[in-house]
Amino acid sequence: MEKWTVLDSREVYAFPPWLRVFSEKVRLPDGKEVDGFHRVQLLDYALMVAEREDGRIILIRQYKQGVRDISLTPPAGGLNPGEDPLETAKRELMEETGHVASGWRKLQEIVTHANQRCSVGHIFHATGARQVAEPNSGDLEEQQILYLTRDEVIAAIRNGEVMTSSALAALCMVLGGIAPAP
Amino acid sequence: MEKWTVLDSREVYAFPPWLRVFSEKVRLPDGKEVDGFHRVQLLDYALMVAEREDGRIILIRQYKQGVRDISLTPPAGGLNPGEDPLETAKRELMEETGHVASGWRKLQEIVTHANQRCSVGHIFHATGARQVAEPNSGDLEEQQILYLTRDEVIAAIRNGEVMTSSALAALCMVLGGIAPAP
Repeated sequence: MEKWTVLDSREVYAFPPWLRVFSEKVRLPDGKEVDGFHRVQLLDYALMVAEREDGRIILIRQYKQGVRDISLTPPAGGLNPGEDPLETAKRELMEETGHVASGWRKLQEIVTHANQRCSVGHIFHATGARQVAEPNSGDLEEQQILYLTRDEVIAAIRNGEVMTSSALAALCMVLGGIAPAP
Repeated sequence: MEKWTVLDSREVYAFPPWLRVFSEKVRLPDGKEVDGFHRVQLLDYALMVAEREDGRIILIRQYKQGVRDISLTPPAGGLNPGEDPLETAKRELMEETGHVASGWRKLQEIVTHANQRCSVGHIFHATGARQVAEPNSGDLEEQQILYLTRDEVIAAIRNGEVMTSSALAALCMVLGGIAPAP
């Protein structure tokens, strides 16, 4: 099975650093050429399932404009230019929740959209988290920090309160025992 | 906790029906106004974890241009205009794999990107699937259909072969027992 070849990539819209849109011409393995296969580039980000020393999981209740609703999500945030994703994860955990964690493991990189990409999420599992400072996220959104047991997180998922794909993927990987044990 | 108000929404790029980009002006609950908060609209889609009568799960091995790699994904596809998502799911299962299923349950709607939306995925769990026709997807991508045991799917996830967020979320919800039992 062969990959496609990008013959041409042309930026058609940009609002840096948040968004760039490219119109691409691709060649398929059978030789067919397709023009106008678009690629959307949003900020790549780190997202983490963070467990405190008491075993509770840190979630943030927050209005999200992509959802247009109030949703539960693990701590997460965009990568600064040149920033290592693990550093982003540690920085966001501190900024958003005031916690540090003793154990960090990368679970996976996931692509947000199979056809247009949109962004790459670097998904982590953090353990032994403890609060050492007050949160100071600087985000536009109001936020409420929750410390939930595993059963409470599963109940929230079943209740439809986790509404975004990478948040749901990361939580279900860890809580469902799909991620390899640390 | 209050939602944001969209004061103005202006289409800044369009490649219909695949992509529309909007630049929006929003008002936050504290009265602050932010201009240029972008919204990306790709096709909404249905995606299903489909289990055959023999208990094996149907996955498709396929090059995906958003990933720029060969990835494993459940059957999925974009909603036609006005199409009910369950009908999309049934149509895509037939087109991509030649299967029909006896049991269908909606798991959740998930938003692809928390801030910019990108698309909404309608996630289903189908059971009792059996092949009644040859696949005829009409997709640009070559595809290889796999029938994997639950353990084989978990091994593939741990091996990093499922690379997209909603595919990973749906599979981990079902295989991890996070989704409510049928």
